[in-house]
Amino acid sequence: MAHITLPEGLPGIRGPMAFRPETAKPLNEMVDVLLRGPHTLTPGERELIATFVSSENDCRYCQTIHGAIAAHHLNGDEALVIDVKRDPQHAAISDKLKALLAIAGKTAKGGKHVTADDVARARQQGATDLEIHDTVLIAAIFCMCNRYVDGLATWAPDDPDFYRQRASLVAANGYVFSGTVQTPVAKA
Amino acid sequence: MAHITLPEGLPGIRGPMAFRPETAKPLNEMVDVLLRGPHTLTPGERELIATFVSSENDCRYCQTIHGAIAAHHLNGDEALVIDVKRDPQHAAISDKLKALLAIAGKTAKGGKHVTADDVARARQQGATDLEIHDTVLIAAIFCMCNRYVDGLATWAPDDPDFYRQRASLVAANGYVFSGTVQTPVAKA
Repeated sequence: MAHITLPEGLPGIRGPMAFRPETAKPLNEMVDVLLRGPHTLTPGERELIATFVSSENDCRYCQTIHGAIAAHHLNGDEALVIDVKRDPQHAAISDKLKALLAIAGKTAKGGKHVTADDVARARQQGATDLEIHDTVLIAAIFCMCNRYVDGLATWAPDDPDFYRQRASLVAANGYVFSGTVQTPVAKA
Repeated sequence: MAHITLPEGLPGIRGPMAFRPETAKPLNEMVDVLLRGPHTLTPGERELIATFVSSENDCRYCQTIHGAIAAHHLNGDEALVIDVKRDPQHAAISDKLKALLAIAGKTAKGGKHVTADDVARARQQGATDLEIHDTVLIAAIFCMCNRYVDGLATWAPDDPDFYRQRASLVAANGYVFSGTVQTPVAKA
């Protein structure tokens, strides 16, 4: 049971977002810019960063929904998402994304863990300042979202199909729009 | 030196915010709603939560600027801000705020550290669902800001007067407006 009374039937971050739409609006806008805006990293790559950080932070809802959105963008490759969560340095992704995921993982531990060497490695693999900036900010934002979701003890559905269906909606319409679509789901 | 090339002379979060105004705008809006919007917690109390979390995360820029803003709202009581950072449970603040700071500190460690007992204690001291929600979200947002600031290795001025002056500006005008006032300061 969540720590506070939240609107019924909305899993994960959607409960507190419906409870406090004033903060949900800018939060969704920020996530839309970072994960879906025009970019040299693909939406799939950016969702993998969000998924990996949420996995490092052990947030079941966030890693599952963003993992499903990542897979949606990656032609349904759910196995790759699992590989990235388990061991990104040996997953079938670019060397640049491996270097960015190393920065993301360190950001999740705490900003000071990111070293000049980590950044130099990313740059050697062709990462731009914007890509490095956005990697740090995506990681930081998911450290926020993970704490928001788990700090209020929100619930997360078990059915993987729930996440796949929601992923299609978010991939098609974005976070700002989907945030306003409050289709409740039955609790397991 | 920061890990990426940021606009000159803007300390802490202001460098990356000027670098990426598309994400700075919603971030400042979210912080304005939470720390300055109409509320049953005073702006001073909410800034103390932000300051305490930033101190727990050892982010010098964030704890110093938000500590200065907290003190500004608390009739200049800088000693109280120091007490709250060191040992909130014995500081001269309300029992409700002590309970909320306990929740904030646990959120900073990770959302799952927040227990039903922590929330029950806050409720016994009169905390509402909105106050508990906003405490978790303020703590989560500063876990993001602290990682954003330190993950990019931004610089922080040493002079306490810099923070006091900036605190007056933010207290008077808010985060959204102040975010657009890019008065550079000389690096020490």
